[in-house]
Amino acid sequence: MGSNQFGNLFKIVTWGESHGKAVGVVIDGCPAGLELSAGDINSELALRRPGNSPYTSPRKEEDLAEIYSGVFEGKTTGAPIAIIIHNRDARSESYVPLKEIFRPGHANFTYLKKYGIFDWRGGGRASARETVTRVAAGAVAKKLLSHFDIDLAASIQAVGECASPTTHFHPKKIRGERDALFCVDKESSTKMQAVLEEVIEQKDSVGGVVELITSPLPAGLGEPVFDKLEATLAHAMLSIPASKGVEFGVGMGAAQMRGSEHNDAFDCDEEGECYLKTNHSGGTLGGISTGGPLVLRVAFKPTSSIGKSQESVSLNGEKVSFSLPEGARHDPCVAIRAVPVVEAMAALALADHLLINRTRKL
Amino acid sequence: MGSNQFGNLFKIVTWGESHGKAVGVVIDGCPAGLELSAGDINSELALRRPGNSPYTSPRKEEDLAEIYSGVFEGKTTGAPIAIIIHNRDARSESYVPLKEIFRPGHANFTYLKKYGIFDWRGGGRASARETVTRVAAGAVAKKLLSHFDIDLAASIQAVGECASPTTHFHPKKIRGERDALFCVDKESSTKMQAVLEEVIEQKDSVGGVVELITSPLPAGLGEPVFDKLEATLAHAMLSIPASKGVEFGVGMGAAQMRGSEHNDAFDCDEEGECYLKTNHSGGTLGGISTGGPLVLRVAFKPTSSIGKSQESVSLNGEKVSFSLPEGARHDPCVAIRAVPVVEAMAALALADHLLINRTRKL
Amino acid sequence: MGSNQFGNLFKIVTWGESHGKAVGVVIDGCPAGLELSAGDINSELALRRPGNSPYTSPRKEEDLAEIYSGVFEGKTTGAPIAIIIHNRDARSESYVPLKEIFRPGHANFTYLKKYGIFDWRGGGRASARETVTRVAAGAVAKKLLSHFDIDLAASIQAVGECASPTTHFHPKKIRGERDALFCVDKESSTKMQAVLEEVIEQKDSVGGVVELITSPLPAGLGEPVFDKLEATLAHAMLSIPASKGVEFGVGMGAAQMRGSEHNDAFDCDEEGECYLKTNHSGGTLGGISTGGPLVLRVAFKPTSSIGKSQESVSLNGEKVSFSLPEGARHDPCVAIRAVPVVEAMAALALADHLLINRTRKL
Amino acid sequence: MGSNQFGNLFKIVTWGESHGKAVGVVIDGCPAGLELSAGDINSELALRRPGNSPYTSPRKEEDLAEIYSGVFEGKTTGAPIAIIIHNRDARSESYVPLKEIFRPGHANFTYLKKYGIFDWRGGGRASARETVTRVAAGAVAKKLLSHFDIDLAASIQAVGECASPTTHFHPKKIRGERDALFCVDKESSTKMQAVLEEVIEQKDSVGGVVELITSPLPAGLGEPVFDKLEATLAHAMLSIPASKGVEFGVGMGAAQMRGSEHNDAFDCDEEGECYLKTNHSGGTLGGISTGGPLVLRVAFKPTSSIGKSQESVSLNGEKVSFSLPEGARHDPCVAIRAVPVVEAMAALALADHLLINRTRKL
Repeated sequence: MGSNQFGNLFKIVTWGESHGKAVGVVIDGCPAGLELSAGDINSELALRRPGNSPYTSPRKEEDLAEIYSGVFEGKTTGAPIAIIIHNRDARSESYVPLKEIFRPGHANFTYLKKYGIFDWRGGGRASARETVTRVAAGAVAKKLLSHFDIDLAASIQAVGECASPTTHFHPKKIRGERDALFCVDKESSTKMQAVLEEVIEQKDSVGGVVELITSPLPAGLGEPVFDKLEATLAHAMLSIPASKGVEFGVGMGAAQMRGSEHNDAFDCDEEGECYLKTNHSGGTLGGISTGGPLVLRVAFKPTSSIGKSQESVSLNGEKVSFSLPEGARHDPCVAIRAVPVVEAMAALALADHLLINRTRKL
Repeated sequence: MGSNQFGNLFKIVTWGESHGKAVGVVIDGCPAGLELSAGDINSELALRRPGNSPYTSPRKEEDLAEIYSGVFEGKTTGAPIAIIIHNRDARSESYVPLKEIFRPGHANFTYLKKYGIFDWRGGGRASARETVTRVAAGAVAKKLLSHFDIDLAASIQAVGECASPTTHFHPKKIRGERDALFCVDKESSTKMQAVLEEVIEQKDSVGGVVELITSPLPAGLGEPVFDKLEATLAHAMLSIPASKGVEFGVGMGAAQMRGSEHNDAFDCDEEGECYLKTNHSGGTLGGISTGGPLVLRVAFKPTSSIGKSQESVSLNGEKVSFSLPEGARHDPCVAIRAVPVVEAMAALALADHLLINRTRKL
Repeated sequence: MGSNQFGNLFKIVTWGESHGKAVGVVIDGCPAGLELSAGDINSELALRRPGNSPYTSPRKEEDLAEIYSGVFEGKTTGAPIAIIIHNRDARSESYVPLKEIFRPGHANFTYLKKYGIFDWRGGGRASARETVTRVAAGAVAKKLLSHFDIDLAASIQAVGECASPTTHFHPKKIRGERDALFCVDKESSTKMQAVLEEVIEQKDSVGGVVELITSPLPAGLGEPVFDKLEATLAHAMLSIPASKGVEFGVGMGAAQMRGSEHNDAFDCDEEGECYLKTNHSGGTLGGISTGGPLVLRVAFKPTSSIGKSQESVSLNGEKVSFSLPEGARHDPCVAIRAVPVVEAMAALALADHLLINRTRKL
Repeated sequence: MGSNQFGNLFKIVTWGESHGKAVGVVIDGCPAGLELSAGDINSELALRRPGNSPYTSPRKEEDLAEIYSGVFEGKTTGAPIAIIIHNRDARSESYVPLKEIFRPGHANFTYLKKYGIFDWRGGGRASARETVTRVAAGAVAKKLLSHFDIDLAASIQAVGECASPTTHFHPKKIRGERDALFCVDKESSTKMQAVLEEVIEQKDSVGGVVELITSPLPAGLGEPVFDKLEATLAHAMLSIPASKGVEFGVGMGAAQMRGSEHNDAFDCDEEGECYLKTNHSGGTLGGISTGGPLVLRVAFKPTSSIGKSQESVSLNGEKVSFSLPEGARHDPCVAIRAVPVVEAMAALALADHLLINRTRKL
């Protein structure tokens, strides 16, 4: 119900605007006894840091998370974990020229319609800045998953028209192989960089696709009928700014297949343990994990903020032409920055499912 | 938290297995004063009726909804609305041969892993039978939306490799044009029928895509940051059995576009009212409705139940080859049957957003 | 959020009006594998049956619960459990004379204010008839608790000015000792019966107090800081029609005590296991169960429906004097009928806490 | 579900331990457009400040709330409102001697049982320090209520055996009359002070009762059947540390009344508007507000921390006798300190009901 809240038993609430004092998250429901330090969170934040590669926004913040509660002598206590990240490099003055304009692809129009008020400084709550709190909370979720031997990793699967070949590497290998673009395929990465150079040159932006894969999940995660594994993961993914689609396993491509082709055949290993020989389904049957890896892809639209001149209208209804002022920062391709966010949201959804599933049998 | 529950303020809880006495839904939170009769629900149920076209399962049930509570003298009272649909044609005996086999693409494997128990008769809770209660509840949601002049309709956009050209008709026109396959384009429909004939002939099945469009929504629906309009709709769609992907506006295609191309330009009409000149976004900005129509597409995998012989394993780990027994019914393409379910889930999500949005301003 | 819903993981949704076709409840989240039959529920319903004693309403319904879903081959499957109880003896015609009158102590005034509509037949959703579904769901919760060796029982502690001496018997002994008034003390019961005879004679009604005690609970139940054991139990109890107060342990009396007197001292048994030597707290510290029995008391106001003539006003604002028509049934003391409802609500709250508590440690 | 969360639409999440860096609260769902400043919150915090009177704990913190998000140019934006109060005077060293002892009346025993870990510094999450965040959030809820002309105030109704006569003053008058003990009756206050002097002298503590009254509420607040006004208020009140009972209107006393006596008669004013001539019910019928003032009382047990020597056991099961060390602070009567907390929790519950009620009619 709280729209700034995600999860049921492993629940987070995030707060903070891009140009306020700080952004933060409260995690309510993390089991007691988990080892946790600020370092665990900061190593994840480093992954999404602006200025991490030549192709992401040059905002020079070194995000540092502080744990304000819920951890005592290095372990979670069962109390809510409050994490705060102070905003250090928030130059709201560069947004003043944009104050009176409905920016194409931006949320100031809809926020104004919804709330009758808009915090115009850098996008307020609609800014990608908000995702730093997701990554911070996701770091805690990853620690919990890791305690249960669940691993996951995301990578860039496409930038504009350049797609990387599908590999379905183990998460560990993905982390080992991916470069500054989060791409695991060197050849594709070179092509993607060329696209990025082109859009930067043209003061434009480009869309992209992020793929996430997990280690084999324990069978049984996912809650029929409305909180199926895909349903809550889709919810998680489409809540990320700029995401426009999500698919599981062969995904949208399943629509073009025959049943005899899409059905994953069952087999048994020598101990009589059943498993699926293929993974077209992406790791679920009936919305419940099969015991195989979960596979999903999220499509991101091109960054809305571009340097190119665009036609729009002002708040009082006059047509205007505008270009983004120099100081206002943006990424040529938000999908790249979204890679750690996709990981975080997947970790949060899985941590929640893991806890819920503890209560489903006597 | 309740996994058989959807929505926050306009909330539903569904129950019932495919081979039990009945299936049902309780709607908790429908505003008082809405005109409602069993007829309003039954006309919607007629749309998803098995046996409605030569290409859907020949199960011969005439589903009849009864309203057990929450309506007095033709109007909703604010009390929970219980709707019950009795199961009339549940032949569990035809499932006996399948009792001991993990069926490819089916949920009996994962249900057994999760719950340690499985109601094997026709899929239990994992059966598409469950969706009849979504359609019943969706009928009430549609009545509520209609009170606020919101309309919506879905159609088949693809069956296997056959895709219909994009039209973006108004919902009213879609309802007027669509045929027994829920296709609004005659030429495409003929091709789709050929594909269906082919898979029936081959005792196989095929996937498909359903597209949903609404009338222009009131601006302001959708709850940042986790309950964005796309997020809850994605949740809704991926909770439908056999769905494997969802996309909004240009969708996955957004990943291949440039920002200057994807951004929908703002314009003003003569009264100074702002609007978007195009609708690549599918009707949202920042997760909030823009005032334009919402557009989404859902991909469905091919029906898992096929007549063709498949390799699998039994519950005690022996390899088996099996074919679906004659009496066990299935559709050649579940996407067709899913059309009214997509409408219902969209209506439920929108009704909920409509009520929540009443509380966001002073 | 759904106001006809109680619980988080062991969640119920109830529906139905006193004069509709049926009343029912859906239990979402009962763990799979629990043995359950309609008989388990009907034996509980028998306890609250109207006409059970000379001092409860003469409505002659033999309530019979039917399980419509969620149970297969005698065990819960993890799917929602729908229970339906048909209304057999609903004489709405006897309420016609009351249709136009705001009845003192009744909810038709407030329902009309809230919903703009009112189902006047026998109180609609505000009728005590609604509590039959609580008892049905509570029967399932009791089965779950019993699986974990948790027992509970309630008894009448006071009727009007007659109070029974405090015994704090074990639940098993309470069930063994209590009589038709649910009183465990013979002498008190005789006095209570005299009070009841008197109010029946005077066409009046009287209030009462119900006391609930559990077997020693496992330590650790209850969720700081807002879902403390007392907080959710208080919520549960004050949701019962006619309840006006709840207290734990020495309760309101704690306000008059000294700390040195109220504090329960810790002691250790021979195995070094700590326990509390007294139980002034009623079984909790910091909102979490201590390992001792939980003790609470609920006060019920006198039945609002009385035969005595009362002054009131009609729906159109005219002063009227009215007496309850002959056919309209009521109890001289609702507290007696509330005994099984108090048990049911306590069982539901505890079952939920039991499941939640499974997720709080690694 | 999140146990550190309260409310549905006007929802709060609190965090922080008594001896951490800070405590805080996030308010999710406050409508946009409400005027709000840190001053609004700090004036409320001043009411519960330790050291406010000679009879409350001498902890010398001047709590200062900072608003970190959700307010822009003096108004709420609809985004989550994060409020942080830094801990300034947290002397954990004085708790070291208590580290290994189960303290009578305290939660360290139950926290250890539940979480397997305990933050022993000053009570951790179980400390009354936690309530400062309730008061901060309550200040925002009061601003919202005040926008809709709803006022409320609490006062001390009893300290130990000294009870103040019932006045049912308007909240405004209560605020005007109450003294440092939050007592509105001078004579009673003198007696209460004598009791407090006595328990301080004896290194003991004493219980008390807080009474809350609102201005006449709009009719229609409260959600049948489980979220009745009394049910959620009881939940709110019993979540306050040390509370042991709650009652509405004549409360537990209703159990001793006759129906003809307890029923509040309806009457009409000159404009034909109906109202209740008395208020035994405490402002509700059927769990919905009648249009009159809400009246409730909460009983608090005596402070558990006392200077007097007590018998207890250590964590490893040895019997010990201990006295609270000099530096460890405590109040002689927590009920006094609870007065602003009762107000805050009532305001939070009512703000939530107010928003929910907006969605119940077409």
